[in-house]
Amino acid sequence: MNNNKGTEIASLGEFGLVDRLTKRLEQRNATTLRAAGDDAAVIDLGNEVLLLTTDMLTEGIDFDLSYFPLKHLGYKAVVRGVNDILAMNGRPEQIVVALGISAKITVEALDALYEGMETACKELGVDLVGGDTTASMNGLIITISAVGRAAKDEVVYRSGAKEHDLICITSNLGAAYMGLHLLEREKRVLKDIANPKPQFAGFEYLLERYLKPRARANVLKVLADEGIRPTSMIDLSDGLASDLRQICLASQCGARIYLERIPIARQTSELAEQMHIDPVVAALNGGEDHELMFTVPLAMQEKIMALGLVDVIGHITREEAGVVLVTPDGEGIALKAQAFDR
Amino acid sequence: MNNNKGTEIASLGEFGLVDRLTKRLEQRNATTLRAAGDDAAVIDLGNEVLLLTTDMLTEGIDFDLSYFPLKHLGYKAVVRGVNDILAMNGRPEQIVVALGISAKITVEALDALYEGMETACKELGVDLVGGDTTASMNGLIITISAVGRAAKDEVVYRSGAKEHDLICITSNLGAAYMGLHLLEREKRVLKDIANPKPQFAGFEYLLERYLKPRARANVLKVLADEGIRPTSMIDLSDGLASDLRQICLASQCGARIYLERIPIARQTSELAEQMHIDPVVAALNGGEDHELMFTVPLAMQEKIMALGLVDVIGHITREEAGVVLVTPDGEGIALKAQAFDR
Repeated sequence: MNNNKGTEIASLGEFGLVDRLTKRLEQRNATTLRAAGDDAAVIDLGNEVLLLTTDMLTEGIDFDLSYFPLKHLGYKAVVRGVNDILAMNGRPEQIVVALGISAKITVEALDALYEGMETACKELGVDLVGGDTTASMNGLIITISAVGRAAKDEVVYRSGAKEHDLICITSNLGAAYMGLHLLEREKRVLKDIANPKPQFAGFEYLLERYLKPRARANVLKVLADEGIRPTSMIDLSDGLASDLRQICLASQCGARIYLERIPIARQTSELAEQMHIDPVVAALNGGEDHELMFTVPLAMQEKIMALGLVDVIGHITREEAGVVLVTPDGEGIALKAQAFDR
Repeated sequence: MNNNKGTEIASLGEFGLVDRLTKRLEQRNATTLRAAGDDAAVIDLGNEVLLLTTDMLTEGIDFDLSYFPLKHLGYKAVVRGVNDILAMNGRPEQIVVALGISAKITVEALDALYEGMETACKELGVDLVGGDTTASMNGLIITISAVGRAAKDEVVYRSGAKEHDLICITSNLGAAYMGLHLLEREKRVLKDIANPKPQFAGFEYLLERYLKPRARANVLKVLADEGIRPTSMIDLSDGLASDLRQICLASQCGARIYLERIPIARQTSELAEQMHIDPVVAALNGGEDHELMFTVPLAMQEKIMALGLVDVIGHITREEAGVVLVTPDGEGIALKAQAFDR
């Protein structure tokens, strides 16, 4: 076998790759209601559906153990896994954890990882019900697979957004991205220093957003209590621009979002300025926000604004209008998946 | 953080590690019927249960891409994942796949991997319903998580074996282990040769058992049709000795198995002799057989023998008697998890 000849993965992009790999798949079980293409697969249970999702984190790509405390890593891994269930408007119930364990990982390190996972499980009412451990030649690997449930008519897909719907997000964006940049900067600056004292003062919020993102189960609960049903929803993991395009692709619609309505935390702007990064780019393309983005009918405007829980950043348009960011002076910029061009 | 100080994982062993990590876990959902400690977690669906399991394979530990064709690897990964559902007497229905992809993996390589996964899914009537891809710094990583269903009273746990029950296995053992040894030998022998021609003639069966193990869904179907309900069951992945001990631990019983009844294929014995390996050690401790081992009441003896589908290798005893291998001359040898002492 020769793996060195052939097409590089990068030439397809992640979405192209997933499309290529999943398009050939046949579904054989009548219980499979929805396979690839949303935050979770949807499986028929009669009145209810089962939601099923999996998420892998690899050392050196998704986390750096030189500054990522294992307790937080365990917490974050669970939040990421569970968020895909929440993004379908489901109740997460159980997770299983597969670990690839490298030689440098000690029993105490795994204890810390599990402590973090258990803390997240407790907060989210989720049970860790099993797993698998194998050795890993290089680096820690964590795969969390989660199941949850929803009544059949409660499930929210990416594909339900309609023209005029309002686009809502559950918190400010770009903070996790700047938190990562801060950690990377301090690691670079202090790499040859014997007793490093990283400078995080004033930016603690950014670290928390990167190292310990919170799942927004509470927002979904309030929406349900208020009788507000999102028409579409997605986990904001790849960045607002990319994830909004996913909603628009699945719903065959366009969108207009307004730059001055995109919430950006003060610490995010301050650090971005220090580091000569455009805070809007951090908010649009940074990724790892792990907030929810959803759409609701325009008729819900007053009700959703009154909750004070979400920011309304724009609205859904017809497909031909594309996905557009509107600047304060009224200019429209077409949003691409990973960048935006004027 | 310092991961280099502390207790080495190896000091606990895999089972000690899993015990340590899972004993602290609390279960909060009434739907969680059985968490860690069996082939799959068991989740309440009303009349039915959902079975949930996860399995990780890492390059360099679980497979060597220099001789493991990706098509077979995809096939094997699915069989391994699905086997854990079968070992609970469940019907596997859906899987999700998380991949960690290293730089050397091409699009064509992933196509081959997916082709193998799809072939296994087709044979087993399973749907691949979603997944996750991430980059990997070092080597390919595959996590398969599987769900399946069973009627509540159909589930077979490890813990149901009773004194006098017969111990059955679905095929000969040690073949996959010798297949792996053959592949490793040819790799060593041919490593500096420009146009290597590995010598596999006469041992093709061993390669197939290692590279493309078959799930034994057919045997479970026949048992169900014949009204034979196993009292306990496990996937033979760690080796007969270790897996039989798992049954005995969970069922609080002992076992006597008879050396001359353990089926060993002719090719297994021949290669073992060539390579100065005791074929009985290969059968007892080799692992990766991916056959099913189950127990049935003694009253089923005639019926199960008449099927001609399984080998009866011994019977369950009281716990005090321990787990014992009986040699042809009647000597009893206590079986340890990974080795056996005279």
